[in-house]
Amino acid sequence: MILSNSVAHAHLDPEPVWCRDSRGTAYSFGQYLERIRTFHGHPAPGLIIAGKMVQTALDRLPRGILFNALCETDRCLPDAVQLLTPCTIGNGWMRILGFQKFALSLFDKTNGRGYRVWLDAGKLETWKAIRRWFFKTVPKKDQDPALLLHQIQEAGADILSVGEVLVAAPRFLSKKGIGRRRICPVCGEAFPADHGQRCLACQGHSPYAAASEHRPMGIRAIRTED
Amino acid sequence: MILSNSVAHAHLDPEPVWCRDSRGTAYSFGQYLERIRTFHGHPAPGLIIAGKMVQTALDRLPRGILFNALCETDRCLPDAVQLLTPCTIGNGWMRILGFQKFALSLFDKTNGRGYRVWLDAGKLETWKAIRRWFFKTVPKKDQDPALLLHQIQEAGADILSVGEVLVAAPRFLSKKGIGRRRICPVCGEAFPADHGQRCLACQGHSPYAAASEHRPMGIRAIRTED
Repeated sequence: MILSNSVAHAHLDPEPVWCRDSRGTAYSFGQYLERIRTFHGHPAPGLIIAGKMVQTALDRLPRGILFNALCETDRCLPDAVQLLTPCTIGNGWMRILGFQKFALSLFDKTNGRGYRVWLDAGKLETWKAIRRWFFKTVPKKDQDPALLLHQIQEAGADILSVGEVLVAAPRFLSKKGIGRRRICPVCGEAFPADHGQRCLACQGHSPYAAASEHRPMGIRAIRTED
Repeated sequence: MILSNSVAHAHLDPEPVWCRDSRGTAYSFGQYLERIRTFHGHPAPGLIIAGKMVQTALDRLPRGILFNALCETDRCLPDAVQLLTPCTIGNGWMRILGFQKFALSLFDKTNGRGYRVWLDAGKLETWKAIRRWFFKTVPKKDQDPALLLHQIQEAGADILSVGEVLVAAPRFLSKKGIGRRRICPVCGEAFPADHGQRCLACQGHSPYAAASEHRPMGIRAIRTED
């Protein structure tokens, strides 16, 4: 009976919230890890921290505003934004900068005012495992993943800093339409007319091997109706 | 009794599959629209078509391989890839090109071989509403969203073309690590050492207004521990 009471008690004791999405749904550390696994494939340390970063920014935004997101790296961070907010790379409400800085901003899309949250290297002194992982001072194979996970959970928001920002670059405040489409005279495909006479692929930027006799760009048309 | 029989029969009649994810989970048109709404916010026509495009590429890939995705536009398409495959922008298995061409490729990450699927403008003649939407020949307010949705569902893969590709650019075949991190002497934040003496933001590329006396980049540090 004592055991079963203690189990019941444990069930009543709510697990601490690791992060909430913009609708207010709360995730414990374990639940968030499970969400990550489903979307991102593996519980990357950066993505776990990123969940806390998104939550930290969300907590400060005024309720009910329409906001955009800016990620200063393409590694991990953007997936936390996509999991916890309405901002995705495909709907244009999230943008990514190639700075490779572990920082993100959520900001009011009408005026650019918002909050930037970053993993603060100056706050890692007491969190040795996180420091080793972040600065790669020890080869990955010699790191202790369980200790890293434990320190991330213990540290929570203590390793983050947050500041007010004003997003000033107009391209982050509004979506630019792609404008009129025309047909590329080389590949026969549609592209934005303001890219020039040919599409960017046929201007020499194709990532494909130019190997096919049937179509440029290494593309061989085959039937879709099978 | 007749009514209840017919209802039971309707339940047994499976809805046609619009697309499947890479795990094999099937979505009817309606179910996929609901998935889109949850992730992307609204059932964008491009994202509906993109679901069929991903499915078309997945159908051709050999089973069980590890594959990457390449989207030739950042509009809508990437969200279908993220919803239906393990490739996301944050895990680096999906990359985006700024060509603004409605095309995507899924390819074997070990050798670059895969399939490219595109919305084929030459196949839109019989699908007037899709053509009007794609080429914006009629202002958005004068288009018929219900007819557009109906034509997208009716057309299915008939408006797509698919070809074999060989992704040749090495940067799409492997993830480049960000290398060693150092501290920027201007903002005090961590950045990849190979970006130079300062982080890219402090090299003049910051999207934020430089307005604060406390920190560069318009960032005012505030406490996270509240």
